[in-house]
Amino acid sequence: MTPQAKEKFMQAAIVEAQKAQAKGEVPIGAVVVHEGQIIGRGHNLRESQQDSLAHAEVLAIREANQALNSWRLNDCQLFVTLEPCPMCTGAILNSRLDAVYYGASDLKAGACGTIMNLLDDPRLNHQADVEKGICQKECLSLLQDFFQQLR
Amino acid sequence: MTPQAKEKFMQAAIVEAQKAQAKGEVPIGAVVVHEGQIIGRGHNLRESQQDSLAHAEVLAIREANQALNSWRLNDCQLFVTLEPCPMCTGAILNSRLDAVYYGASDLKAGACGTIMNLLDDPRLNHQADVEKGICQKECLSLLQDFFQQLR
Repeated sequence: MTPQAKEKFMQAAIVEAQKAQAKGEVPIGAVVVHEGQIIGRGHNLRESQQDSLAHAEVLAIREANQALNSWRLNDCQLFVTLEPCPMCTGAILNSRLDAVYYGASDLKAGACGTIMNLLDDPRLNHQADVEKGICQKECLSLLQDFFQQLR
Repeated sequence: MTPQAKEKFMQAAIVEAQKAQAKGEVPIGAVVVHEGQIIGRGHNLRESQQDSLAHAEVLAIREANQALNSWRLNDCQLFVTLEPCPMCTGAILNSRLDAVYYGASDLKAGACGTIMNLLDDPRLNHQADVEKGICQKECLSLLQDFFQQLR
């Protein structure tokens, strides 16, 4: 995938993050891409739905499963503004995604390289590539501005 | 919790696993307990729903979130027939469950003690107790019989 394509898809994930922000949610967004097309979108809805599972990645993956009518997302890539937590990284493995591109690292719970890397564990039955730092500054600003306004 | 209570709740998880089996799904079932009452039930629906996230634990946790109208499941316990995978263990952490009781160990993907223990990682912002082997023989037989019939 070209750097331009990666930026384009991360911008779509950022649009999702802004939707979360508009609802008073921590601004995190994700999209799933299949053959160059976005087939799943999601933004964090934990507070609005009072659902501990309603992370952006989970919602984007579920929409992609529906779009392909398959739980298998081989040949698909996930773009997400913040590094996935252990739950979402497990969801990435369970759905057999090819690759994960994320913007900002999550120093507290990042499971795609920061505090651990579940995508690269040979004991599990699937591995996925990971690339960090796509539109990093913009993804990080969204989060920093949100938490600054809370204080 | 008394051994009798643990067995009673695991039997309810086994009933869920049998529902999955009746639908041709790998027989795994789960329940969430709050103050001695079952507030969430789930069984594996990955194939019927073509949803990579439709594990028993995820569905039981979502139902419990709805029952309490809260994403926080403090003071709740999860009973599940098979040791949770990384995704489900992450979901347990994200929903702040107190404790996990499981029947059979998952030698391939168990993330509550077998190949890793995400419930006991001091770097993450929540930890949960875990006890394995509740109604182990029955939980394991369900799975073994299912896979034997497939062959």
